[in-house]
Amino acid sequence: MKGVILGICPAARLIDLTHDVPPYDVAAAQLALEAAVPYFPRGTVHLAVVDPGVGSARRPLLVEAHGQRFVGPDNGIFTFALDGGGWSAVVLESPALQLATVGRTFHGRDVFAPAAAHAARGLGVSAFGSAVTDPVRTPLPRARRDGADVVGEVVATDHFGNLVTSIRAEDLDAMDGTGPPVVGLGTANLGPLRPAYAEGPPGRPAAIIGSSGRLEVFVREGSAAATGAARGTSVRVSRRSAL
Amino acid sequence: MKGVILGICPAARLIDLTHDVPPYDVAAAQLALEAAVPYFPRGTVHLAVVDPGVGSARRPLLVEAHGQRFVGPDNGIFTFALDGGGWSAVVLESPALQLATVGRTFHGRDVFAPAAAHAARGLGVSAFGSAVTDPVRTPLPRARRDGADVVGEVVATDHFGNLVTSIRAEDLDAMDGTGPPVVGLGTANLGPLRPAYAEGPPGRPAAIIGSSGRLEVFVREGSAAATGAARGTSVRVSRRSAL
Amino acid sequence: MKGVILGICPAARLIDLTHDVPPYDVAAAQLALEAAVPYFPRGTVHLAVVDPGVGSARRPLLVEAHGQRFVGPDNGIFTFALDGGGWSAVVLESPALQLATVGRTFHGRDVFAPAAAHAARGLGVSAFGSAVTDPVRTPLPRARRDGADVVGEVVATDHFGNLVTSIRAEDLDAMDGTGPPVVGLGTANLGPLRPAYAEGPPGRPAAIIGSSGRLEVFVREGSAAATGAARGTSVRVSRRSAL
Repeated sequence: MKGVILGICPAARLIDLTHDVPPYDVAAAQLALEAAVPYFPRGTVHLAVVDPGVGSARRPLLVEAHGQRFVGPDNGIFTFALDGGGWSAVVLESPALQLATVGRTFHGRDVFAPAAAHAARGLGVSAFGSAVTDPVRTPLPRARRDGADVVGEVVATDHFGNLVTSIRAEDLDAMDGTGPPVVGLGTANLGPLRPAYAEGPPGRPAAIIGSSGRLEVFVREGSAAATGAARGTSVRVSRRSAL
Repeated sequence: MKGVILGICPAARLIDLTHDVPPYDVAAAQLALEAAVPYFPRGTVHLAVVDPGVGSARRPLLVEAHGQRFVGPDNGIFTFALDGGGWSAVVLESPALQLATVGRTFHGRDVFAPAAAHAARGLGVSAFGSAVTDPVRTPLPRARRDGADVVGEVVATDHFGNLVTSIRAEDLDAMDGTGPPVVGLGTANLGPLRPAYAEGPPGRPAAIIGSSGRLEVFVREGSAAATGAARGTSVRVSRRSAL
Repeated sequence: MKGVILGICPAARLIDLTHDVPPYDVAAAQLALEAAVPYFPRGTVHLAVVDPGVGSARRPLLVEAHGQRFVGPDNGIFTFALDGGGWSAVVLESPALQLATVGRTFHGRDVFAPAAAHAARGLGVSAFGSAVTDPVRTPLPRARRDGADVVGEVVATDHFGNLVTSIRAEDLDAMDGTGPPVVGLGTANLGPLRPAYAEGPPGRPAAIIGSSGRLEVFVREGSAAATGAARGTSVRVSRRSAL
């Protein structure tokens, strides 16, 4: 894919966002993109091919949103970019903007990489194909209210073994009541939110708002994933002292 | 190595092809290069140092073939580029084009990286050293005919746990007879070739022609390597219904 | 972090030095930097955020030494660059040179990445903050003399399972006596130093001076780490035949 891109757009600057997305894990890819995209300059083209349905009938897409562009399968991977209005999308269908292949077509190399390269050269969205108004959306789990508490779940594990959750900083800002919020993971009480990773108790899990604005469970200089909690484990934030 | 290259050729664009070649695995490196090289632009310099014999007497090489150049050990890693004619090779022996070192020389950093950088700046092949007419060749296993069947073997495992084989699309194109070919892995019948990864049966291995043009054994959203098959496991393609 | 850097310094050339530093392992990061930094061109900015104390009170630093610059936490990660004189350091405290954030600040993305980008654009060190004269130093273990022997220890394991030690080539150059030095790892005799990895005995550990100028224990086409030796295991070099 990198060779194809450089053949079409020799001035392209290629950045590997992460090598840590587990195979077929669209949710992990969404989290990685959601955390990084806002920090890239306008005009960036994001190419993402985490695609369990590779080769199936799902459409190849180019999305333009918030001054950036996104190239990949229509499987929900760019759901976060489709929030609110201000986006447009097309299906990648112009043969002239794809790699000439004999026989089967491999979307990553033959369709997505050429599209990303032509987009990086400045080609307008409408040149690639006809408009798509109903891209697939696969929203990540959202936190919900349970009385005065906020309840969510683990949605991914990062490189450090931190457990990233569906509870975001703004969910906590919207909580009623006073007193410091206390965090529970499954049946374990993690105590109050910590202001820094360095302030977690040695060897035991604790909670923090991480750099992506999501509540994370971490073990200071260790791995929270090693505690056995995983995607789907429930997380609760409460102002009550007993969870 | 990257620092050395940028010191000599500040305009070089550095691309990491893969971080997944197992240590010392020249065959896996050959497969990665064979699949990617045709998609890079003319003039690309490919630097590869998978080198179990590092420090031994094998020669350091620069190969020019098909408008691209290849820098690395003379251990067969570039065999695929030496197919047919139209290539030339030299041994890297000009001290002026190597890093000045005190004591031992490390080929990756002190010989290959400077050579790749000078080649990227446009220095001609003959400046590096004298011609080599007998570079080491270590061809990957090839499929063979067994009656009307095609027989090969697993040659590598990729990042997704897919098993890449010695059977190529053109080997199947050359099969006699009619009817859909059926694939066997060891003693297991994998059924017909699938048109897409998404069309494999859940949880069971199946076969497909992958993006590199080789027959691959995969498990849909899983790992075929976890089935226990590995390098050397036999693979058979037959038009007979019973393998 | 890469997005932030490219937003401030679009011409920046981004190089990933390694993806193999274990989480929180400042010593491994020091070794990786020590081995690579001398080979990068003058003017390079090295950004390193291996930081077990992330979010704690340790200062964010910019160091200038030997014509290069270093951006990261004041936790000793740049100790090797502070050897001898000729360096200067400042604390990163100018809000205009940091990312504007609401609420908590994440040093990697919000402080270090912008500082590295502004430094790459050529901004002088003094613009970032006030001078630091007492940066934290965490020197790696050093070899010591024990009679006529040199004694050290394993300090890290590399990608190939090689054990990198605290014994450097210059420590051996300074040994008294004559006769080939013999290496011991714990209670095992590894025999003489080998001139090349290819000359190690099959399946058994041996010793060599590696590309970073440190004594390494390796298994030819295998993993020395699999022998059970690890950080802290003692290593002895002696001219006596019996260790």
